[in-house]
Amino acid sequence: MTQRLRGVLSPVVTPFRKDYTPDAQRFLRHCKWLLDHGCSGLAVFGTNSEANSLSVEERMTLLEQLVEGGVPAAQLMPGTGCSALTDSVRLTAHAVKLGCAGALMLPPFYYKGVPDEGLFRNFSEVIQRVGDERLQLYLYHIPPVAQVPITLALIERLLKAYPKQVAGVKDSSGDWSNTQAMIDAFAKQGFEVFAGSEVFLLRNMQAGGVGCITAGANVNPHGIDRVYRAWQTPEGAKLQADADKVRQILQSQVSMIPALKACIAHYAQDLDWMTVRPPLVELTLGERAKMVSELLAAGFEMPGIKA
Amino acid sequence: MTQRLRGVLSPVVTPFRKDYTPDAQRFLRHCKWLLDHGCSGLAVFGTNSEANSLSVEERMTLLEQLVEGGVPAAQLMPGTGCSALTDSVRLTAHAVKLGCAGALMLPPFYYKGVPDEGLFRNFSEVIQRVGDERLQLYLYHIPPVAQVPITLALIERLLKAYPKQVAGVKDSSGDWSNTQAMIDAFAKQGFEVFAGSEVFLLRNMQAGGVGCITAGANVNPHGIDRVYRAWQTPEGAKLQADADKVRQILQSQVSMIPALKACIAHYAQDLDWMTVRPPLVELTLGERAKMVSELLAAGFEMPGIKA
Repeated sequence: MTQRLRGVLSPVVTPFRKDYTPDAQRFLRHCKWLLDHGCSGLAVFGTNSEANSLSVEERMTLLEQLVEGGVPAAQLMPGTGCSALTDSVRLTAHAVKLGCAGALMLPPFYYKGVPDEGLFRNFSEVIQRVGDERLQLYLYHIPPVAQVPITLALIERLLKAYPKQVAGVKDSSGDWSNTQAMIDAFAKQGFEVFAGSEVFLLRNMQAGGVGCITAGANVNPHGIDRVYRAWQTPEGAKLQADADKVRQILQSQVSMIPALKACIAHYAQDLDWMTVRPPLVELTLGERAKMVSELLAAGFEMPGIKA
Repeated sequence: MTQRLRGVLSPVVTPFRKDYTPDAQRFLRHCKWLLDHGCSGLAVFGTNSEANSLSVEERMTLLEQLVEGGVPAAQLMPGTGCSALTDSVRLTAHAVKLGCAGALMLPPFYYKGVPDEGLFRNFSEVIQRVGDERLQLYLYHIPPVAQVPITLALIERLLKAYPKQVAGVKDSSGDWSNTQAMIDAFAKQGFEVFAGSEVFLLRNMQAGGVGCITAGANVNPHGIDRVYRAWQTPEGAKLQADADKVRQILQSQVSMIPALKACIAHYAQDLDWMTVRPPLVELTLGERAKMVSELLAAGFEMPGIKA
């Protein structure tokens, strides 16, 4: 087992060419920039990566290209949870085989109102079929998008059945009381709770969590990592407020994923970064200009970012 | 172009072995029973088929096995809409190549609150990439599950751009006024509206729709087909009430898909039919017994069904 990841992880946005094919070189470059500027790990193929707009093969190929390109597998926590059990097994086994630090798993998200028993069976089948002690499974709770929650009762049952494999959670509920409840219930057993947004990072560290996995880290890894490093110091609150300001600008745009890509496009002076895959739509030039002016007014920079 | 399907279509439930692998022989047998007992077509790989719990490869293999096993492709309307654009293109092209009468497409369903422009691009890309005049695309509107709607404005735009490819819709909104609005707006242009439940069949035919694609047709194709054949006669209302009674029993169970499978398991005396893939959970023996007693009390039969 590799060492567990902590700190600031980015669900890395996936660059596409104009024909919507994934651009492996841009992807690799962005991953390396993130690791050089504050990210301790990369939760590639998350929601903000448009992972659910990619086929299983596209995800596997991109992951291999990252590792071949020099991104340490020990810093990777790819998303591997799909709607279909067989896809989740395939992606998870692939990630473990490559030596990834962990796998971040959505629940199967098409069927709604399913019982915890069915979700338990889903994760249980994945763990058993992958059948590899190296697997470190992180549950991905994002009810606003997946519409299928991961409850405390489900976590308890999974931890009891697979204490060595079930490593933690990313809580993207946006509800701090839920994150707190997860920490209170399971952190003592070594279960690691990541906040799903940097706005909860300071609170999460103070409560006993281990970091955050957040969209904002795609453009502001340095600002968010500063909060992480200083959380026990008097500067923590001020640095958190600085990070919140950037987050606030990003998420007040028309749509978060296109906003992140437009931000990178601007600072890297690389307009192809604007492209998103359907069903998402890129920001208009006017929307981008508005966002950029707000970011510049806030003194925001992406140091060292390149086309 | 093959002739368009009308009448009663079943979103065929997919049988699994105890290890959750699809059982092609049982699937073929059930498809043939459906075509022999009232279904004019088979909307395999719909919501009730647990299609979103199957990988792309599993769906392609099963479809090929049906055609090789003697199910006419001209009676098949497989579901081909996935979360990932590349998967939707692959499945749709495969269905067209096999000669299927149509493809029933979900919108990409992971990302929520996406603009119609993004959904238009999704369907447009599929039509253009498949690039085959034989493609007959049926839009699948099922907001309670997909959580991503297909609006009238989107249909209008797609029909304008691709009048030969955009053939119709399955409306599983459960909202009759929406089905009526789709017919009123587009039926005159040859756009074919299927109700998403047999409970709307008579109304749909009277309003100018062409049939229904309904879960209930998995077990009661004969009863629903009777409504379809008699819709212009005085017996239509009585036959609709009979079909409604069976539907009511099925959907009052704990969960619809497991209930359909438990029903087949009982009448075919083939308990392996109970199996559902996670995240769904099969009915308990007690739940099945309750449903069966209600069905028997209503005089319900599945004539000719076999293990």
